[in-house]
Amino acid sequence: MNYRKLETCFSPLLFEPENHKGAIVVIIDILRATSAICTAFGHGAKSIIPVKTTEEAKEYKKQGYLVAAERDGYVLDFADFGNSPFNFTRDRVEGKTIVYSTTNGTGIIKQASGSGSVVIGSFLNFSSLIRWILNRDSDVVLFCAGWKDRFNLEDTICAGAFAERLMQSSRFVTDCDSTLAALDLWSVAKPDPKSYIDKAAQRSRLRDKGLDDCIDFCLTMDYTEKIPVIQNDILVDNIL
Amino acid sequence: MNYRKLETCFSPLLFEPENHKGAIVVIIDILRATSAICTAFGHGAKSIIPVKTTEEAKEYKKQGYLVAAERDGYVLDFADFGNSPFNFTRDRVEGKTIVYSTTNGTGIIKQASGSGSVVIGSFLNFSSLIRWILNRDSDVVLFCAGWKDRFNLEDTICAGAFAERLMQSSRFVTDCDSTLAALDLWSVAKPDPKSYIDKAAQRSRLRDKGLDDCIDFCLTMDYTEKIPVIQNDILVDNIL
Repeated sequence: MNYRKLETCFSPLLFEPENHKGAIVVIIDILRATSAICTAFGHGAKSIIPVKTTEEAKEYKKQGYLVAAERDGYVLDFADFGNSPFNFTRDRVEGKTIVYSTTNGTGIIKQASGSGSVVIGSFLNFSSLIRWILNRDSDVVLFCAGWKDRFNLEDTICAGAFAERLMQSSRFVTDCDSTLAALDLWSVAKPDPKSYIDKAAQRSRLRDKGLDDCIDFCLTMDYTEKIPVIQNDILVDNIL
Repeated sequence: MNYRKLETCFSPLLFEPENHKGAIVVIIDILRATSAICTAFGHGAKSIIPVKTTEEAKEYKKQGYLVAAERDGYVLDFADFGNSPFNFTRDRVEGKTIVYSTTNGTGIIKQASGSGSVVIGSFLNFSSLIRWILNRDSDVVLFCAGWKDRFNLEDTICAGAFAERLMQSSRFVTDCDSTLAALDLWSVAKPDPKSYIDKAAQRSRLRDKGLDDCIDFCLTMDYTEKIPVIQNDILVDNIL
């Protein structure tokens, strides 16, 4: 049996594209981008176009697209709504293509574009994504988005949860200290992830802006079976 | 009382010089650079000149300096010895100025040069450095050298040990997720740091090269009271 390599990256600044060619890159940004994306697909969204600048988002808005856009937690005035998963309700998104402008998500997707596949991970699509990964043969990189290029706790414990299940499968090996650290931090957080995340810096930032109502939801396991993947720079659903 | 800020940086790529002006930067590279430096001063070295290139080290050698130099664990042929702390014996280093060529240490020292002070940390000078820090008023950055710009476990748990003691003093606050993670990883490692480090990637690298004989020693608490600090690009002893 060929073992597959499991690695974890704690920040966009630490991503090593030359080492990850051919790998499955799982993007993890649970508060709130990747949770919102999983929710949108769970509620029937057809596709999501990630855009970097507010100008691009505005241009799409003029063309009649549904636009989710915010900066540092504040909804942009021309947008239909912000990035909370609660905005992506079935009545709003079913069958639709959504333009999604994120603080740092677009850059990350571009960074990972030389890899084998780029897939969106969160607790919301956890078990489904584990199955999807196990059904393939590539190495895996758990790519934590962090916050403004910094390490963050919430994405790291989610990476640790993914790493735990993948390592349990005995199909993976790792000599990556970041993966080992994520596993240990998840073992600390696992009994009560909500309390654990309470100390995280992003938790305070969301609380200060009254945007922390979605945290329980973002920690929900297996809300959906959808696997959002990047195809030609657009996020589409890729069910097994 | 003014609280002091405590931050942790997991890799040279994540260091933010503009945010750390005036701070005490503690460089941590316990396997083996900062342990070796603390040992050298503990055994009476007068000063250490860190150099980046092997050419510089060679030039100093011609001038009659004692030179410690290696790359990826291998001693350079012209050097007096490599970077194991065991090389820096009293009979070799007492009263001497040593030229020290490191894989990545010099770059880190340069990165931190805009901060208030740069000091060398390891388990070997742990309590003494804690006292030194507590006797000052600046913010503190625990700067883990990592390995080739990657996160590593051994420096992180040492940072966690420093963070634990500094936070216990009630003089520090932190909203830095890296510090919180280092604290948690140290809490996992603390009952048996040697076994914990056994899984670290650098542990395997040293073992593969037969260079792991110093690990027990590098985990020794309080072998020396010396506080190596950078002054004019040179490391000197700065006892309280």
